[in-house]
Amino acid sequence: MSFRFEIEARDGKARTGRMVAPHGVIETPVFMPVGTLGTVKAVAQDVLEELGVQILLNNTYHLYLRPGVEMVRSLGGVQRFMAWDKPILTDSGGFQVCSLSELRKVTEEGVAFRSHLDGSSHMFTPESSIAAQIGLGADIIMAFDECTEHPASRERARGSMEMTLRWLRRSRDYFEQHKEEVVWFGKQWPVASGQLSVKAKTTSGPSTAAVPLSETASAQDDTSSERRMANSEKRIANSEQRAAVTPGQTQALFGIVQGGMYPDLRRESAERTVEIDLPGYAIGGLSVGEPRNITYAMVDAAIPYLPEDKPRYLMGVGTPEEIVHYVAQGVDMMDCVLPTRAARHGLLFTSEGKLTIKNAQFARDEGPIDPECGCKVCARYSRAYLRHLYASNELLAQTLNTVHNLAYYLDTMRRVRQAILLGEFATFLSGVRPPHLSVP
Amino acid sequence: MSFRFEIEARDGKARTGRMVAPHGVIETPVFMPVGTLGTVKAVAQDVLEELGVQILLNNTYHLYLRPGVEMVRSLGGVQRFMAWDKPILTDSGGFQVCSLSELRKVTEEGVAFRSHLDGSSHMFTPESSIAAQIGLGADIIMAFDECTEHPASRERARGSMEMTLRWLRRSRDYFEQHKEEVVWFGKQWPVASGQLSVKAKTTSGPSTAAVPLSETASAQDDTSSERRMANSEKRIANSEQRAAVTPGQTQALFGIVQGGMYPDLRRESAERTVEIDLPGYAIGGLSVGEPRNITYAMVDAAIPYLPEDKPRYLMGVGTPEEIVHYVAQGVDMMDCVLPTRAARHGLLFTSEGKLTIKNAQFARDEGPIDPECGCKVCARYSRAYLRHLYASNELLAQTLNTVHNLAYYLDTMRRVRQAILLGEFATFLSGVRPPHLSVP
Repeated sequence: MSFRFEIEARDGKARTGRMVAPHGVIETPVFMPVGTLGTVKAVAQDVLEELGVQILLNNTYHLYLRPGVEMVRSLGGVQRFMAWDKPILTDSGGFQVCSLSELRKVTEEGVAFRSHLDGSSHMFTPESSIAAQIGLGADIIMAFDECTEHPASRERARGSMEMTLRWLRRSRDYFEQHKEEVVWFGKQWPVASGQLSVKAKTTSGPSTAAVPLSETASAQDDTSSERRMANSEKRIANSEQRAAVTPGQTQALFGIVQGGMYPDLRRESAERTVEIDLPGYAIGGLSVGEPRNITYAMVDAAIPYLPEDKPRYLMGVGTPEEIVHYVAQGVDMMDCVLPTRAARHGLLFTSEGKLTIKNAQFARDEGPIDPECGCKVCARYSRAYLRHLYASNELLAQTLNTVHNLAYYLDTMRRVRQAILLGEFATFLSGVRPPHLSVP
Repeated sequence: MSFRFEIEARDGKARTGRMVAPHGVIETPVFMPVGTLGTVKAVAQDVLEELGVQILLNNTYHLYLRPGVEMVRSLGGVQRFMAWDKPILTDSGGFQVCSLSELRKVTEEGVAFRSHLDGSSHMFTPESSIAAQIGLGADIIMAFDECTEHPASRERARGSMEMTLRWLRRSRDYFEQHKEEVVWFGKQWPVASGQLSVKAKTTSGPSTAAVPLSETASAQDDTSSERRMANSEKRIANSEQRAAVTPGQTQALFGIVQGGMYPDLRRESAERTVEIDLPGYAIGGLSVGEPRNITYAMVDAAIPYLPEDKPRYLMGVGTPEEIVHYVAQGVDMMDCVLPTRAARHGLLFTSEGKLTIKNAQFARDEGPIDPECGCKVCARYSRAYLRHLYASNELLAQTLNTVHNLAYYLDTMRRVRQAILLGEFATFLSGVRPPHLSVP
């Protein structure tokens, strides 16, 4: 079994569970930070681990253009490429092709487009998107869909939905024929990369895992040769403790529900998508400019027709308050650039609402970003210092702001899971300040 | 005693020792990373701690302009402002006024200049520079000097040196009259900032220290309320372990030797500078464009006339090889933007020489930056990944490159100290590839 989903507890429509993927276990509901080019912008992988990130999203469109799929594959796949030994999900590239590329032309065959980097011509088809995603080697990959624009006429939304359904079959067929080509199939696959060469100079055993920060820190007073030796030994010990990918596992392909802003099309799309038996299903084409009450209505229109026993992934959402409400609708997985992108623009999420760190009111504020937050940024730095870093255009502003926002999102999801487990989710939900339009 | 220097061991002219400053102990010889605006660009303070950074340099010119001296003072001084509870050194602003500001005009009174940020008019005098540095509150502060340009005629170098000597007396006089105005004088001074407010919500005891990463990481599976409580308790425990600044301590003012590229002026400058009894002495006005053999000659010209029992600080140097050779000449402290600035331009220092990470040859290189390096970047990431980050202009490139370069410098200094302690420094020095011009 390459992929498994187990529901642990239910509270209303919300549920908490565990996804078991080739590179690890994911507790749901889960928020997946976006690491477009193989990096969550401004945050190192060990800090993501400290934050408790369980799964990252990488963008196929971006990695396809730079450094290229074959490059990533030859370097061992995305996990090993970015030295992240936990699960990763890649999108299909369909959304980015629509939103970023130039001179896009959609046909039954696929989407022809020009790179936003250099204007070069490319084409994504269901087959080439899945080939790219098999090459990248994420744990979960997405069928190639057309993200219907908003607004769209009913006729246009239906036509787009029908094409996404045809593309789903082609995606599935290509995946079934080629799924064993993923770089870690059939191998006891070590994930981390740099260490192999480090180790080769000093030891002979297998060495795959990164050295935990705490051990590096505690070793800092030793002489350097002792430290290097100690690090090597720890790497070996770690590699023996950490499970590599079990041979014979493959990626999990998820289908995507479309249907524009038409509840009946959303229902039909869900019903016809689940005719293809897949390990998970996503709801796409939302959060594309529509009013939030419409988003909630579209989720409600689709979810009853998705299987109870499969994970449900709502793509590209949302604010901290919204993601709690989506969980209440029965969603298990979400991703969004909001916490990371907003952080880089100085917008911070707190238990007291949003905060724009560049505001002059924070210049002499010795308090933390959020008095209720337990993250390492709130534990150490004042608003005054963070405002100074942002106003001075210092790189550290982007790192610290991003760490806090991710901590806030991940902490929210931890509390959501806890509340569902305790059967207290309705109470928890009532305490979350409602989004500007509440659940219909 | 606010400041103490003890020599521990000697090997040739090199020596290893300990400086005891108000905010902590510094093992020498020491390399001080530059944190211009209260941040070592792209690196968080907890990572600097992991790296074993003992003392940072902040630039008075930059902090004076932004966020301003009174702002930093009202926020508790530079250590508390940037949540760094170890020693800090500030320069006098003299060098930056020369190199960065516009429309500079030097008179006996001081230097009138316009801000490089907004063109506003300012003046630094010995008195105002020391006042700014007392306001900022670093452990070690520098007399206001004129950094003689290169090349300079003998007459010009002598005139500049004489003015620096007059300015030294004014710096010293102002400092002696105002040294008790430093924000942490006469107080049991807690260093970190944000925690006070965090703590106020949950506990009643004093809380000053940041939570160690390892503890945050190990707590990541707890529920968030438990985590916050645990963090608060740990903060209290930490604050009881960590010593605050002892009341009654003051800053240490160092004088600066000038004299251009004239050995006899360097000697005279050293002899007349040490007539003012100060806790330490710096050699300034070097590494300003002169050939490296001249730099070594000027250091050799001054050092015999500096007191054996006081720390010697060579300002603004150098490459990893050069700093080892300066230690061989008897230098105890150095600072330089080279490791951090070079890192941001993709230039990495390794045991095998310099490496330009953007080069195509590293695109498929799964090895670490430096196979001999024990830093956390080399333990985890491949050259291929770091090249991808740099080529993609990702923020993480700047962080990881800087962490490695600082690790390389700090590790070099650790090995230098170890070699001196073991009486093996001559052997160590012979193994360091000579700078392009070796010690004369």
